[in-house]
Amino acid sequence: MPRLWSETIDAHRREVRDAILDTTARLAAEHGVLSVTMSQIAERTGIGRATLYKYFPDVEAILFAWHERQIASHLELLAQVRDQADDAGTRLEAVLKAYAMIHHQRVRHHQHKHHGAELASFLHQDKHIAAAQQQVHSMISELLTAVADAGDLRDDVPPHELATYCLHALDAASTLPSKAAVGRLVTVVLTALRPRP
Amino acid sequence: MPRLWSETIDAHRREVRDAILDTTARLAAEHGVLSVTMSQIAERTGIGRATLYKYFPDVEAILFAWHERQIASHLELLAQVRDQADDAGTRLEAVLKAYAMIHHQRVRHHQHKHHGAELASFLHQDKHIAAAQQQVHSMISELLTAVADAGDLRDDVPPHELATYCLHALDAASTLPSKAAVGRLVTVVLTALRPRP
Repeated sequence: MPRLWSETIDAHRREVRDAILDTTARLAAEHGVLSVTMSQIAERTGIGRATLYKYFPDVEAILFAWHERQIASHLELLAQVRDQADDAGTRLEAVLKAYAMIHHQRVRHHQHKHHGAELASFLHQDKHIAAAQQQVHSMISELLTAVADAGDLRDDVPPHELATYCLHALDAASTLPSKAAVGRLVTVVLTALRPRP
Repeated sequence: MPRLWSETIDAHRREVRDAILDTTARLAAEHGVLSVTMSQIAERTGIGRATLYKYFPDVEAILFAWHERQIASHLELLAQVRDQADDAGTRLEAVLKAYAMIHHQRVRHHQHKHHGAELASFLHQDKHIAAAQQQVHSMISELLTAVADAGDLRDDVPPHELATYCLHALDAASTLPSKAAVGRLVTVVLTALRPRP
């Protein structure tokens, strides 16, 4: 069945929007957030300046939209990983591993580019970060509570505090040099969650 | 024995400098980094504007000097805590506890003030932070190596990776609501360091 005209338009708009986001993030990482102009973005995306302004008012708005898309895809990935496993313990381990890997890859990706640190610092202002972190914290608290119900969690610290511990400890993945080291970090973090002997 | 005139001058200069740092940090936390002026600082410190300019060229320089003094005093505290304990394990535990408490109190102190977050974000640019973090990381790596030599450390992860883990995990202290919760965090972090059964 052919797509409705409105669906075709919607799909086209999404593709253009995605292309704008990708181009802008690349330009910002290569040349620095402050040096990117709307004209450069239009040219590199292969659209007119007037078209670009129909999508976004300025470079800042594009970068925040790009970041929002990144955050949404990370949250989606964590939910997928969680739902692929069966028991609570396996789910927790899979989600913590995926969270650590996201952190590891994102920061290494930024570091490879010249102005990655500047971009990271700019995006750090994003109000969406706090909300996303809260969502991940809730997800991990729930998983920990499920592991506790199965009797496989230490019982001297409440699950929401253990979730805070997990997230901060796994942030270390951003400074580790290899995936093997990230794997060891996840093992270390999990050790501390086990019931006391 | 009376102090030499030059010693008296030095002591006086240090006192004035410390007073300027304290006043500026308080003003910045209360009214925001951007709204503090050199005139306000001079007035609240009880010195003339001309005198103030003999010490510092601008507000930014004062805030960075204040921050440098904070960092130095934290490093000193950690070294003191380390040297008060005898065996490697007790030293490690004492240093990790002190590090977590510094983190907990600093951030809570900032949050109590209206513009604390802004001040924290401004100071985050400080180049001294990376060097100080490197120093703390070295100190904890050395303590972990000593614990490993005593046979009391897990042997599947190198001490420098465990140090990275400790520092990131203990950063969680900044978001915990009470000293009791910080104590539980330190216990959790330490659990993961023990030799595997």
